[in-house]
Amino acid sequence: MALNPQYLEIGQQFAKQYYTLFDDPNCRAQLVNLYSPDQSLMSFEGSQHQGAQKIMEKFAALTFTKIQHIVTTVDCQPMFDGGILINVVGQLKTDDDPVHGFSQTFVLKPVPTGQGFFCQHDCFRLAIHNV
Amino acid sequence: MALNPQYLEIGQQFAKQYYTLFDDPNCRAQLVNLYSPDQSLMSFEGSQHQGAQKIMEKFAALTFTKIQHIVTTVDCQPMFDGGILINVVGQLKTDDDPVHGFSQTFVLKPVPTGQGFFCQHDCFRLAIHNV
Repeated sequence: MALNPQYLEIGQQFAKQYYTLFDDPNCRAQLVNLYSPDQSLMSFEGSQHQGAQKIMEKFAALTFTKIQHIVTTVDCQPMFDGGILINVVGQLKTDDDPVHGFSQTFVLKPVPTGQGFFCQHDCFRLAIHNV
Repeated sequence: MALNPQYLEIGQQFAKQYYTLFDDPNCRAQLVNLYSPDQSLMSFEGSQHQGAQKIMEKFAALTFTKIQHIVTTVDCQPMFDGGILINVVGQLKTDDDPVHGFSQTFVLKPVPTGQGFFCQHDCFRLAIHNV
């Protein structure tokens, strides 16, 4: 499969959709539609989860009331199997906690039947440095 | 191809090797061996380059004398085609400049013939936030 020439638009649109859903408590449950039942892997601060259900259980267990992802950069690369690699750098605000930098990587894969993409890999890490 | 059960060791070892070579001016040219002549994509602060030669030209054009990558976390995930996704968060010190956070994502793919992996995707971004 060739490199997808629309990788940038697709990657940027995915990141926008992901954080819009994540940051709205009334919409967060819709994130389930971005993952595969079994072929999605998610790492959250080193904790690993496989499949849409386990990933959503992890999100539901996070203990914040308000959350806001402020995106600084979204880098995208086309992959040689038709997928798209996305690397996001930004800042995270939760409740009244100090703002932290974050890094999040996604790998999108074409849906096997039909159109569109699903999120096969999702790797989130806060950037808290001990200088 | 199945998920590689040694994804964590392979990913961590790659990151260690990469930054060891990058930070030593006498060894940096050896990075060429980690990339494919044409099937490697690299983004550096939004500037995109394809193939080992173009990637090395970009590295050679960077204007620092001393550089040090201080790795904070290395997250790895096995990929369903036998590859490995790596997301590194750390800090970068160049010359006498202020220390900056960085985020770097790698995708390793098995070498088609023979053993080992090459770096198919490399995406580097400094984390400089405008609060």
